[in-house]
Amino acid sequence: MADYGAADLDLCITADLCAFLSRLRLEDLPDDAVRAARRGVLDWIGCALSGSDHPTITKLLSVLEEVSGKPQATVFGRSMKLGVLDAPIANGQMGHMLDFDDTHMGGVVLHASSPILSALFALADRQAVDGATLIAAYAAGFEAGVRAGQAAPGHHNGGWHLTGTLGSIAAGAASARLLGLTPQRTVHALGIATTQAAGMQQNRGTMCKSFHAGKAGHNGVLAALLAERDFDSSGEILEGKRGFCRIYSTETDQDRILEGLGERWEITRNGHKPYACGIVLHPTIDAMVELGTTSGVDAGDVASVELYVHPHAVTITGVEEPRTGLKSKFSLKHTAAVSFIDRAAGIAQFSDSRATSEDAIALRRKVSVVTDETLQKDQARATVITTSGDSHETFVEHAIGTVENPMTDAAIEAKFLANASPVIGADRASALCDLIWKLDTLDDVQALTALCA
Amino acid sequence: MADYGAADLDLCITADLCAFLSRLRLEDLPDDAVRAARRGVLDWIGCALSGSDHPTITKLLSVLEEVSGKPQATVFGRSMKLGVLDAPIANGQMGHMLDFDDTHMGGVVLHASSPILSALFALADRQAVDGATLIAAYAAGFEAGVRAGQAAPGHHNGGWHLTGTLGSIAAGAASARLLGLTPQRTVHALGIATTQAAGMQQNRGTMCKSFHAGKAGHNGVLAALLAERDFDSSGEILEGKRGFCRIYSTETDQDRILEGLGERWEITRNGHKPYACGIVLHPTIDAMVELGTTSGVDAGDVASVELYVHPHAVTITGVEEPRTGLKSKFSLKHTAAVSFIDRAAGIAQFSDSRATSEDAIALRRKVSVVTDETLQKDQARATVITTSGDSHETFVEHAIGTVENPMTDAAIEAKFLANASPVIGADRASALCDLIWKLDTLDDVQALTALCA
Repeated sequence: MADYGAADLDLCITADLCAFLSRLRLEDLPDDAVRAARRGVLDWIGCALSGSDHPTITKLLSVLEEVSGKPQATVFGRSMKLGVLDAPIANGQMGHMLDFDDTHMGGVVLHASSPILSALFALADRQAVDGATLIAAYAAGFEAGVRAGQAAPGHHNGGWHLTGTLGSIAAGAASARLLGLTPQRTVHALGIATTQAAGMQQNRGTMCKSFHAGKAGHNGVLAALLAERDFDSSGEILEGKRGFCRIYSTETDQDRILEGLGERWEITRNGHKPYACGIVLHPTIDAMVELGTTSGVDAGDVASVELYVHPHAVTITGVEEPRTGLKSKFSLKHTAAVSFIDRAAGIAQFSDSRATSEDAIALRRKVSVVTDETLQKDQARATVITTSGDSHETFVEHAIGTVENPMTDAAIEAKFLANASPVIGADRASALCDLIWKLDTLDDVQALTALCA
Repeated sequence: MADYGAADLDLCITADLCAFLSRLRLEDLPDDAVRAARRGVLDWIGCALSGSDHPTITKLLSVLEEVSGKPQATVFGRSMKLGVLDAPIANGQMGHMLDFDDTHMGGVVLHASSPILSALFALADRQAVDGATLIAAYAAGFEAGVRAGQAAPGHHNGGWHLTGTLGSIAAGAASARLLGLTPQRTVHALGIATTQAAGMQQNRGTMCKSFHAGKAGHNGVLAALLAERDFDSSGEILEGKRGFCRIYSTETDQDRILEGLGERWEITRNGHKPYACGIVLHPTIDAMVELGTTSGVDAGDVASVELYVHPHAVTITGVEEPRTGLKSKFSLKHTAAVSFIDRAAGIAQFSDSRATSEDAIALRRKVSVVTDETLQKDQARATVITTSGDSHETFVEHAIGTVENPMTDAAIEAKFLANASPVIGADRASALCDLIWKLDTLDDVQALTALCA
């Protein structure tokens, strides 16, 4: 019989977090956080552009174009603008469309940039925003979203798609910072964003999965705009008795929310994907690309493939016979097969035609998977045995794109140019790249969005 | 290691439900269901109009007006239109703003009309829709939302605000039916709507509570419009291994979803509120209004009040000293006091000024509450003891507005006129009333929305 206050009355977790976030400035961030922001913006815009002409986006835009009136915010890769609540749905879904966007490496499987940056760029098209403010807001989004996830350890296993749920929280916090809201209004923005947080793992392998990222961006923008007009919410949305940590998770670890705030920067633990699929597949891809490159074995001469992976890798990748490109991203066996044959795991390896091609089907049926608890999540071992009995083996210590083995700036730039050039042309892609590397000094980030249209 | 199919492979719960809903027509409904639909629309429009000039709605509209372009859909009680995704946010929040809208009586505390009708009237402003189709869609929304809730028995206790969560499901199903979607597309609409479902009880007593109802309407419209363009989703969003029943509830009872479909009509179990607060307070109000009317005792002569209520009644109404009208709706003691003094529990009894008025404060401090497990949820007992030692007692067998003791059509009409007339004038309110009583015969329901502007 009570008023949903925090269980522990001397704590004001949400209020303390929001006071911190509302005051966050570029100057507060260490150099590696600012560098991570530049890399994050560059990689994400490339992913959004490469997803912008996907048929799913065309369906989405056919609805949004009909219902959205004011041309306030740029739709990436398209010659249209949408209202500031609608553009994030499109841009956020584009960013996550190909499963090619960044993944946080702090124990929370959050693709943070799609919800956060879809929200921020829409708001930045509505009013002038400098690069320093955008970076501070981006970093604020990471702190809120990742920390909320760390405080709810049962959240992922509960069946939630974190890019939808934590993405709403992250986008709300980031949008509040971009708008320069007071600490109290930031509390409200977080409360309004969190009460809209949704996204179910049941929808993996459907168009809804990437939609969650866009809807999270929309939720965040709406939350911040409402809070700016003094629309209120619970002051304890994270720690309250019916707050996020308790209702979205069977376990809670609320101390994580404020732990090391201002010392550890979650944006610095953001991982970038060399491959266009879920991060759990990456160690296997590294292994199979290496074997495909070094073994000299033709796929037709392979008798069997044995994969040894961390148990986590198989919980969502058990599809045996994917019939679409989307489903093939949830097939460890397909991924291993095409990585070996093509020595790559880009957009082409997860297309509808590759998912149903004869050589991929033949090889993936020869793959067996063993889970090995002694392996780390970013490790994998693979053995290819030929029809003549030869054996080729490799071990991946840390997958490329993890904190321990990050993509280089040059690799991220190359990925960006490959993603962006086919959509906006090589010259504009190159100009965009130059601007993003000096993002912290830009007076108005509309210089970026103008090049993305 | 699998693809999130149903645990029980011979069941296609979502598919069967959606096939049924997609084919539902006015002619399939028994007379009491059609009557319930007329009563539901009448009561809900009155509630939306009475909530339309609330300061919270003004804040909300100040944002929506700025970001929403196309004037596609009527905003009730206001001289503006918004886009078809945005108007439901406003109209749905208005409908639930004063806690005066209908409540389902089938074991699921769902205020179904605010999400469903905010969605349907927005879509009906976009294309001509006849009254028969609107009624079929409205009934379809009740079946989907209520049955999903019945299949997830731990959902409410898990901390969710059902009008947000089940409201999204209900609005999605209703919108799909209004648009005449195929069975397969109805499955997708339900999947897209459910994956957006949100709303936390942590936000009770804040502006977010009624916002949940509007956002649910928005989610449902977006889901149906996307499904119409073949945007897809999981085919097992309710029963899947990571489907609604499992991730939004600690218990599941999935057989409830299809049980008696087409025989029992959930819309016939919709309850209408004589009082402007949560349904759990209504038995107490009935008792205190009766004692206030019949005892002849002045509030100043009351020594003590004893309330005996079902334990459920106190779980969310324990606020001892509410300082706002909104908070006073979560105070059983405030409610008992003003019901006795004013012999009413309308909008005036839950205003900011009434929450802080001296006589209400003095009397509510004399109220003690006893929970009694032998009472039903719609029952209450109250005793008023005077300073001279006299005792006055009453027992409420079934609160007014329940299925066993429903408001009469005349009482609903009187409530509608009282709600609507101050906003749109007595003549228009009366004309609207006449139209709604013959809703099933209307060629185009825009005749209704035109009178609500």
